[in-house]
Order: sequence, then C-alpha cells, then structure tokens
Amino acid sequence: MQLQRSLASLPGVLDAGVVMGTGANKDILAQSQLLTSEAQAAAADDLVIVVNAESDEAATTALEQVDELLARRRTGVEQDYRPKSLKSASDMLPSAQWVLVSVPGRYAAGVAREALREGKNVFLYSDNVSLQDEIELKRLAASKSLLVMGPDCGTAVVNGVGLGFANQVRRGPIGLVAASGTGLQQVCARIHQLGGGISHALGTGGRDLSEAVGALTAHQELELLGRDPSTAVIVLMSKPPSHRVARELLAAARSVCKPVVVDFIGYSSSSRRVGNLYFASTFDETAEVAVQLSKQPAQDRKALDVDRFAPGQRYLRGLFSGGTMAYEALLLLQDYVPAVYSNAPLDEQNRLDSAMVSQAHTIVDLGGDEFTVGRLHPMMDNDLRIRRLQQEAADPEVAVILLDVVLGHGAHPDPASELAPAIASARGTAAAAGRHLEVVAVVVGTDEDPQDIASQVQQLQQAGATAYYSNDATIELVGGLLGALNPEPWTSKLPAVDLSVLNQPLAAVNVGLESFTDSLALQGAATIHVDWKPPAGGDERLMDILERMRG
Amino acid sequence: MQLQRSLASLPGVLDAGVVMGTGANKDILAQSQLLTSEAQAAAADDLVIVVNAESDEAATTALEQVDELLARRRTGVEQDYRPKSLKSASDMLPSAQWVLVSVPGRYAAGVAREALREGKNVFLYSDNVSLQDEIELKRLAASKSLLVMGPDCGTAVVNGVGLGFANQVRRGPIGLVAASGTGLQQVCARIHQLGGGISHALGTGGRDLSEAVGALTAHQELELLGRDPSTAVIVLMSKPPSHRVARELLAAARSVCKPVVVDFIGYSSSSRRVGNLYFASTFDETAEVAVQLSKQPAQDRKALDVDRFAPGQRYLRGLFSGGTMAYEALLLLQDYVPAVYSNAPLDEQNRLDSAMVSQAHTIVDLGGDEFTVGRLHPMMDNDLRIRRLQQEAADPEVAVILLDVVLGHGAHPDPASELAPAIASARGTAAAAGRHLEVVAVVVGTDEDPQDIASQVQQLQQAGATAYYSNDATIELVGGLLGALNPEPWTSKLPAVDLSVLNQPLAAVNVGLESFTDSLALQGAATIHVDWKPPAGGDERLMDILERMRG
Repeated sequence: MQLQRSLASLPGVLDAGVVMGTGANKDILAQSQLLTSEAQAAAADDLVIVVNAESDEAATTALEQVDELLARRRTGVEQDYRPKSLKSASDMLPSAQWVLVSVPGRYAAGVAREALREGKNVFLYSDNVSLQDEIELKRLAASKSLLVMGPDCGTAVVNGVGLGFANQVRRGPIGLVAASGTGLQQVCARIHQLGGGISHALGTGGRDLSEAVGALTAHQELELLGRDPSTAVIVLMSKPPSHRVARELLAAARSVCKPVVVDFIGYSSSSRRVGNLYFASTFDETAEVAVQLSKQPAQDRKALDVDRFAPGQRYLRGLFSGGTMAYEALLLLQDYVPAVYSNAPLDEQNRLDSAMVSQAHTIVDLGGDEFTVGRLHPMMDNDLRIRRLQQEAADPEVAVILLDVVLGHGAHPDPASELAPAIASARGTAAAAGRHLEVVAVVVGTDEDPQDIASQVQQLQQAGATAYYSNDATIELVGGLLGALNPEPWTSKLPAVDLSVLNQPLAAVNVGLESFTDSLALQGAATIHVDWKPPAGGDERLMDILERMRG
Repeated sequence: MQLQRSLASLPGVLDAGVVMGTGANKDILAQSQLLTSEAQAAAADDLVIVVNAESDEAATTALEQVDELLARRRTGVEQDYRPKSLKSASDMLPSAQWVLVSVPGRYAAGVAREALREGKNVFLYSDNVSLQDEIELKRLAASKSLLVMGPDCGTAVVNGVGLGFANQVRRGPIGLVAASGTGLQQVCARIHQLGGGISHALGTGGRDLSEAVGALTAHQELELLGRDPSTAVIVLMSKPPSHRVARELLAAARSVCKPVVVDFIGYSSSSRRVGNLYFASTFDETAEVAVQLSKQPAQDRKALDVDRFAPGQRYLRGLFSGGTMAYEALLLLQDYVPAVYSNAPLDEQNRLDSAMVSQAHTIVDLGGDEFTVGRLHPMMDNDLRIRRLQQEAADPEVAVILLDVVLGHGAHPDPASELAPAIASARGTAAAAGRHLEVVAVVVGTDEDPQDIASQVQQLQQAGATAYYSNDATIELVGGLLGALNPEPWTSKLPAVDLSVLNQPLAAVNVGLESFTDSLALQGAATIHVDWKPPAGGDERLMDILERMRG
C-alpha cells in the first residue's frame, strides 16, 4: 500500500490503486473510478496497478517508477543472514518456542504444520485458512502438547511480549483466553486504563468455539492459565460460540480454582454469578469485573460439605407457593444442572408427567392453576405443601428440599408454625433411613410484616432448615450442592501444555509480515525472520513483489 | 381448609380431605390414601369430604360435625350490614376507587365487568380466568381510564396499602409495575431490606406481556408512574414476555423521564444500560439497582443536540478495522435501532447486499476476509477506510460515522495522522452541503503503546471527532443520537388514568376472600365486604359452604 501512496503522490497523478485482482478489490477500484477494462479482466492472483493521471505521459512516467518505488521500502531490524526455511531459522534460534505465521492463507496451514513438526507453538495470524485445516492443525498441536492460536488470530500477549497487533499493557494477575482479536485488545487496554494488569493474553482464533472446532485451543489455554502461578483471575471471551461448546468450556472453567470472568457474545447466562464464574456482557464490563476481582484477596472457595449425604442422594425438590419465585429458581438453576422438571417448566420438554409426582430435579409451583381450583392458595394454606414435603423426604434420591416462605398481608398468619414441624419431621424420616436432607427456605418478607419475620426464620432454623432472604444466595447454595452431587466434570483429554511456553523469555521465528519481526525486536524478544518464498507451485515473481510491498 | 384440619383433629380421625372434586384434587387425595370410590366419582363442582378414621363410628361422628365445625369459622372485622351486591356496596362506600375480586374463576370476569361499569378499578386476584375475558376486561378498563390488575394478580401496594398478598414495606420513591406476583413481593421485600422504599407496586397479571394481551395494563401503569410525583425510579418486571410486546413497552419506558430498572425473565438485553433503562437479571439485582438509583440525586437526562443535523440525516455508518469491535457495536446497537446492516451481521437477514455499499444503518468490518485478500489489514493501512469515509460523507442520509482506532504493536505507527485529515475533509464535505456529520471514534490503546495515545486522541478531536476509550460510552452516544434521529415512539393510544387512583387514601370494595377485607381493614383502609353469591346458575348451597369455609 506504500506503493499505492507513493504512486498517488507523483506529479500529475490523481489517484492510484495497487491490489490483487480479487472481486472485492475490483469493486473498490470501481468505486474510485480506477477499474479499467484490463483491471476488470485480471485474475484474483494478478497484481493490478492502476494510475489515474492528468495526462498519458504522467501515467506512463508513474508506472515506469514502480520498481524504483518498491526499492524505497522501509528497512526493518537489521538481520545479517535471512534463513530461507523454518528449519534453518529454528536451528539459528533454538530457544524459539513460537512461530508467527502471516503468509497468505493458502500457504499458511502448510507453514503452521511445518512449525508444529519442529515442536514449535504457532501464532497463526493468516486468515482465509480452511476450517478443515484449522481442525487438523489444532489436533496435531494438542497431540504434541503445543498450542495453535488462530487462524485469523490478531493478537496475543505472552510473558509481556505482544504478538501480531497488541497493546502495551501493565503486567499483572489477569490472564485472558479469547476467541476474538480486537475484543481481546480492547479488554486488555481497558484493564490497563483501569489500573489492572495482564499475565498473559492468549488468542484462539475466532472459530475456536464453533461446533466444528470444539474449543480445542481454549480448553488448552484455560487449563494452562489455571496452572499458571502468575495468573490469579482468568477472563474467557468469545465471538458467538456454539451453545454446546460454550457449556463444555464453562464446565471446565468451573473446575478451575480461580475466578473466571466470562464474556461470550450472544451467550446469556441466567445470572451474573455462577460459583467462580462471573458473567459480563460487554468488553468494558469484562475489564471492570476482572480488575475488581484481581484486587480482592484470593478467596478460598467454600468447600460444600456433601459427605453428609448418603450414596444415591442427588436430586432437588423445590416446593414453591410463588409462581415467579419458582420460575426464577428454574432459570437460575439452569447454570448448575442440565434439567429441572416442573409443572411450569422453562422448556416444555421438562414438563412433569404429573404435577403430583416429582422426577429427577423438580420444582413444583403449588400455586399453579391446577392446584388452586377449589383450594386455598398455598400461601394461605400449608396442607398440600406439608403432604408433598413428607412424600419427597421418603424418596432416597432426594438430597435437597427448597421452599419459599412468603410473609405479608393476606398470607398465612404464621406459616413457620406449620412448616417447621413438617421440616423437622421430614429430616427425621430421612435421618432414620441414614440420609441427610438439606432443607433450604427463601423467606420473602420484611420486619414490618404481620408475621414477625425474625420468629419465622428462627422456627425454620430450629427445625434444621437453612433460611435466606436472598434468592441469589439461595440458588448459589442449592446450585452448588447439586453441582457437587451431580458432577459434570470436564476432564481434559488433551495432554497438558508445559508452562514454559508462557513463562520462559519469549523467542519466536516469524514467517510472513516483516513488520511483526520488527515489532518483536522492539519489545526485546529474541526473533528471527524467515525469508519465506511460497512453495514451488506459487507464482514466485508475484509473491516476491508482494513480499517487498509488505516490507 | 380449616374444616379439613378441624376434622383431622377430632378423636379417632387419622386424616381428612375437604376439596372440590377436580382431577388434581383427586390425585392429591389418592396420594394420601383418601380417594374412596365415591370421591373418585365426584364431579369437579362437587365438594368432597373424606375422613380416614380408626372406626366407622369415629368417621360417622366426625362427618356429623361438619355443619358445627363450619360455624366455628374465624370471625373477621365486624360489619353490621353486608351488602349483597357490588352496586349497593359502592353506594355505601362511594370513595372506593378499587374493587378486589377473588371469587372463583368462572364468576370473576363477570364481577370485574360489573366493577368497571361502576367506574371502579379492579384488583383481580382470581385465577382460571380466560385469556379472552382478560383482553375484554382490559380494553373496557382502558376505554374508561381504569385499571384492571390481573387476573391472577397476587399482590399490589397502592398508596401504602397492600392488596392481596403484600409485604409491609417502607414508603419511598421506587414505583413498580410487575407481571409477576411473588417476584414483585420479593423485589419489594428486598428493597425494604436494603433500606429503600416503595411509592406504589402495581400488578398486571402474569399474562399481561403476552402477545395476545399486548401489555395493556403495563403501559397504563408505566405511564401513570411516569407522571406520579411520588415515584422517582420505576421498576418494570415480567414473567417471560413476548419479544415484540417487551420491545414496545421498553420503547415506552425510554420515553419516560425517570430511570427504569427492567427485569424481564428470559429477555436478554445486550448491555446492562440503555439510556434510562437499567437491565437486571435477578430479583436481588433488580432491588439493588433500584435502591442505588433511588439514592442518587435525580439527573437531568442529557439532551442530545440533534438540531444540528439537516432534515433527512438519520443513518449510522460504522467503518471498523476490528471484527469483534464491530460485532460488539452491532450487538449493543440492537437496543437502540431495529436493524444494522453489515458484511458480518448478527442476523443473516441484515447482511449487506454488497460489502462495498452501505444501506440504512451499516457497520462494515473492513478487516473481513473479503477485504484482506491481497491487501494489508486496515489496522496497518488506512487507505480503504479513508476512501469509504469520503463515500459515506457524501451520502445526505448519513448522520453519524463510527470508527475504531486500534493502536499498539503491529498496528499503523500513526493512524490519526491519516485518519484525522480524512475526518476533517469528510466533515467539510458534509458542511459544504449544509449538513452536520458526527464522527465518533473509539480508541483502543494504552499510554504505553508506541503511537502516543494522547496525541492520537488530540489529532482526532482537532479534526472534529468525538473520541472515547470505552465502547459502552461510545455506543451510548451513538445509540442515543440514532434513537433521537429515528424516533420509534410509543405514543399511548390509551386514555390516561387519573393519578388520584394512586394518591387518594385507598378505599376498596372486596368481593370474595373475606381475609382480604380483614387485611385491608388492619392496614387502615376503608373497605366493605360484599356478601357475594354466585349468580342464579351457580350451585348456591355448595357456594355457601365454600364461602363459609373461606371465612
């Protein structure tokens, strides 16, 4: 593009275009009135040079200077000898853990494959690489405990050194994994602006969380940052992911003992916090939450005591009097267990066969229309709920009972006086059979309600229930217990990548855009530029001109 | 249900069931081993009384006492004379603005209709009311500037008085509109627990935001709270709404000059803040945000100056170098304008016919694969972007140009040196044609980047651009401008409801559950209970027993 600008600045030249003859580039030429019939006839592989000049003479003069102008290319870092192959470059810089690849897309997979064979991790900047090549490269890399960031990976920061496009940011405890280029740059920049700092920022390529690729690279990188002692808080970002792949990656993130801030574009979690996961919805918010967490003292995650339960105890039974309370519980529990059945389900496929009989995890709305014909509402009358409570307590697979206790005008004048003995009796039934029954109650009410909320809570607690006012806190406990009782672990089947890839001084071989070599050198990284030529099949003269233009 | 408990406590009685003979109730009887063959044969309208006793004698004795037990019903507030009709009750308490209806579902619509004809607002607690009746009632109400909260409206607080089930909460500046019962109770209770207070909490019935009902009541109530001087912050809640209806209601909420906290279950907005709307995802969060806002000094909403634009200027053109930056902009703008076209659209139906030509609101990712074959990435080379900028500036319908300027290693060493003159020239082109061109740039970078971020920002600003580091702030400005230039107003076609319905001392006629009359009286509200009987077609004896049981 320097050539284009140099041409356009010559005397008598009005405008100039220097592009490959692709359809898109022809459209752009056309919009600038530069699409001559010869240019129109060019093939995608042709280099098109068009000059719009005041006179034929000016145009001819300009075109004659192309070779001279190309010679004026900016000279980068001095490098006495330029190896012609990746192999010889690797021999010259044996400490290089990384190979940066930015050759044209059709050659990129080949170069990346060669780098993997040399035992190098790959930063694959090139775009226009096929999905099939991506999958093969990532599988090959994983089998060798190596990483392939990309293709179309715009940015990364490894051990303080930016690869590709990268902002200069403060070092710090936040490690990032992103299937996104400028998104990752913006979050890193915002973290820096907010006073935070980065351990490593790892790209994956924008398609990594697609169904086809299955987040191969993101899983490797997440696991790596989980082990990395310089990372205390992890950020996980992605362009719109496959729902299934996202869920699997989040399951892996749940098993990492560090807080993880998640910003998956277009993936909505039901609540902003699920265990150690913090969901953010914009780049700004992602950076803010990550910085905030990085400044908090590291918290030991509260271990939930699930040893008290007998083998086989695993299910939730929620017995609700409030429809919307039941609904929110269903919604929030989505992030903890795959399915909760109900008479008022989120999804018709989780509808209970009979509202009278629970199955697996169940939340039943006892205020539903089917229960209130010819009956008082369960906020006024506890009979139905008490009967159901006994029924659930007798089920050996039930571990947790969840109740809402709604106080206030119009409601039962003293619900705990009836519910508490029933809870004690239900827990007794379970205990007699050698089981622990966790009863959790969310109490809706105020200190000015007619029922005396303090006494209500006290009665429930004395019966052995855990009582909360907050629905979020309730679901965090219940969801945590269900998660622990129904483990859905993502156990990495991939060989672990050695931490040295992050924590040794970065050294890299660069194949492609020479400016990336300059950039690495400016950041103090050991680097070597390969004087790459396309394989024999390529049009060498054309590639040479392109290479020189890119210089 | 008191009868059931009284029977069960008689000597020799093991258990008892007193229910209407519906299928669901029979199932419940069966689970308690109370479903005799006679009970099985009962019709839905039959009252079923079953006693499980130690002996036939005990059972017979118990059943003989039904009438006597019924006579023991709790006596409520003394009321010398009980009007038999709504009409005479209204005459006795002419100040009553409200009628509470909790008669069985099949009679409820009739009673509500009668109340509306009397010019009363209706709190319709009854469930099992048809959708058709709901729509008719709400239309009738709207035409008379009256409200119908419900059917199946569990709770409301009007001028400090709770209707139906309601917690006793502090008075304060937060007004709520909710298509949700216990959800509204929980948010009100949490607001109180957090030290906040309520002006009014208005229910709508859980189906109000359905496609069929179209949020008739929510629109009325939102508009009412918008005018209510005692309300400074509004909360809008709903069970899963129709997407279209939710969008319309949110458009109305945008036109209210008060902050509105939105918690629509299952409706995800792209960002947490859109103008005066604050999106929350749980009851707890809704309460927290509302309390926080209610304690901030009322802010005048910054008026956006859109008078500078010429008539016809209305569109956005976003020219991005970063793919994910473009994606987030597309995503966040969804909350401001119906559609933004792109070469990388959120939704295929918004794909640009040609990436080279913008249409309506457009965001083009100039780093997309189609632009980078045989070309440098736009983060390195500004040529393509500068050409497109001139092209957009010449379009008389374009009002706002949005750019990302990505700094850092690998990127152009001084992008502003090329972009700023182009911005100045584009603005000049527009100005020469009598137009104002708003150019907004989001700058991705840090103070340690090689480009000198301060000088980059300064160059952009001197060219007349507005520059931000934050994407959220950028979209708030751009979205706000687009909203103002493309008004999508929800202009209420409904006659306004008079504020006196909220702000005069609450007085109500109660038809149905007698405990609601007691509850109103205990809260100091003027109230009168109607000695309601079902119309001639009803089984009067049965209804009488039921009424006495409910007392």
